[in-house]
Amino acid sequence: MNNNAFTPTEIDTVYRVIAERRDMRHFCGGKVPHDTLMKLLGAAHHAPSVGLMQPWRFIRIQNPQLREAIYDAVQAERIKTANALHEREDEFMRLKVEGVKDCAELIVVALMDQREKHVFGRRTLPQMDLASASCAIQNLWLAARAEGLGMGWVSLFDPEQLMHLLNMPRGSLPIAILCLGPVAEFYPRPMLETEQWATRKDLDELIMHDGWHD
Amino acid sequence: MNNNAFTPTEIDTVYRVIAERRDMRHFCGGKVPHDTLMKLLGAAHHAPSVGLMQPWRFIRIQNPQLREAIYDAVQAERIKTANALHEREDEFMRLKVEGVKDCAELIVVALMDQREKHVFGRRTLPQMDLASASCAIQNLWLAARAEGLGMGWVSLFDPEQLMHLLNMPRGSLPIAILCLGPVAEFYPRPMLETEQWATRKDLDELIMHDGWHD
Repeated sequence: MNNNAFTPTEIDTVYRVIAERRDMRHFCGGKVPHDTLMKLLGAAHHAPSVGLMQPWRFIRIQNPQLREAIYDAVQAERIKTANALHEREDEFMRLKVEGVKDCAELIVVALMDQREKHVFGRRTLPQMDLASASCAIQNLWLAARAEGLGMGWVSLFDPEQLMHLLNMPRGSLPIAILCLGPVAEFYPRPMLETEQWATRKDLDELIMHDGWHD
Repeated sequence: MNNNAFTPTEIDTVYRVIAERRDMRHFCGGKVPHDTLMKLLGAAHHAPSVGLMQPWRFIRIQNPQLREAIYDAVQAERIKTANALHEREDEFMRLKVEGVKDCAELIVVALMDQREKHVFGRRTLPQMDLASASCAIQNLWLAARAEGLGMGWVSLFDPEQLMHLLNMPRGSLPIAILCLGPVAEFYPRPMLETEQWATRKDLDELIMHDGWHD
């Protein structure tokens, strides 16, 4: 029937990589080979985008002082977030929430500038460019997991501060600090589940029929 | 080294499903078996989410009148978008932009209500819940492609109107009308590329080092 059908074994592999991908915060240094990095970014660039906008931009951080400055920015936001969490402040501060210093590769993902030109699929929902870029990051994440590389998406930062550090133009927006690289092992379950920050919902609770119901 | 390493063949399969996934607008009716639909939604639910928030909700549309009303809402927005595109209006109107009537399954994906309680990773970037839900949709998309099912993400709608149609609570937000189901064939390239709406950018153009540069 379909062209290029996937075999049952291949289908299982796709479900497996989806199930075994983790948001990693523990890295063990090392390197990501250049060819692998390009394949991973190529996977990201195969994402769907609203009106074929391709809004994603990747800023690879190689300067150690810049990595240090990004680390400091994340730490500052981590403390502000902890304060905003009130009674869960101490619990939050005990969690490892990023691997900025330990990961092999640090990549900032940003939305392009001049996004206002793109109206297709965004007239009523301008945030669809973020949706597209998030699909790209998920592609990268899955490809990295297949390659045996861990990745974490850090969103603990002040976007204005990161824009300043990276000399980003008005209209662009950093959406992710990606920590990428070799890991000693993948968490068997999401770390925030193991650490009892939150529990996993039953799928049945998330599905409704013909309208919203609680 | 890593637990649960993927073999080279399995790695290729992951890259292949990423490369062969398409945003489909042409469907050929039929059905999605219930078990398959649950596996696909399970794949979505395996997405990462900011602070393990799991903000995604899935509303399966089974009532034919409701599907018709959603179709009408998409058509209304399609015309408004065409008008807003000015000189590209006619070109846009010639594109097939949705498969709402022809797809086997219609699923509205929404962000949950009461999102303001979730501060972890969202203090400065509250839109990270949309990012998480988009990762979930990308998982679903890839799993569907592996299963030989097409999917399209329609964002041509007025969210207020859809919220009214689906009796959605204040604070929730519909982000996608997903068209899912059997297709005669998958587009060999993104349809908007084939139709010359936009061209695919070179990956090299999207990668920068240590800061923004044009």
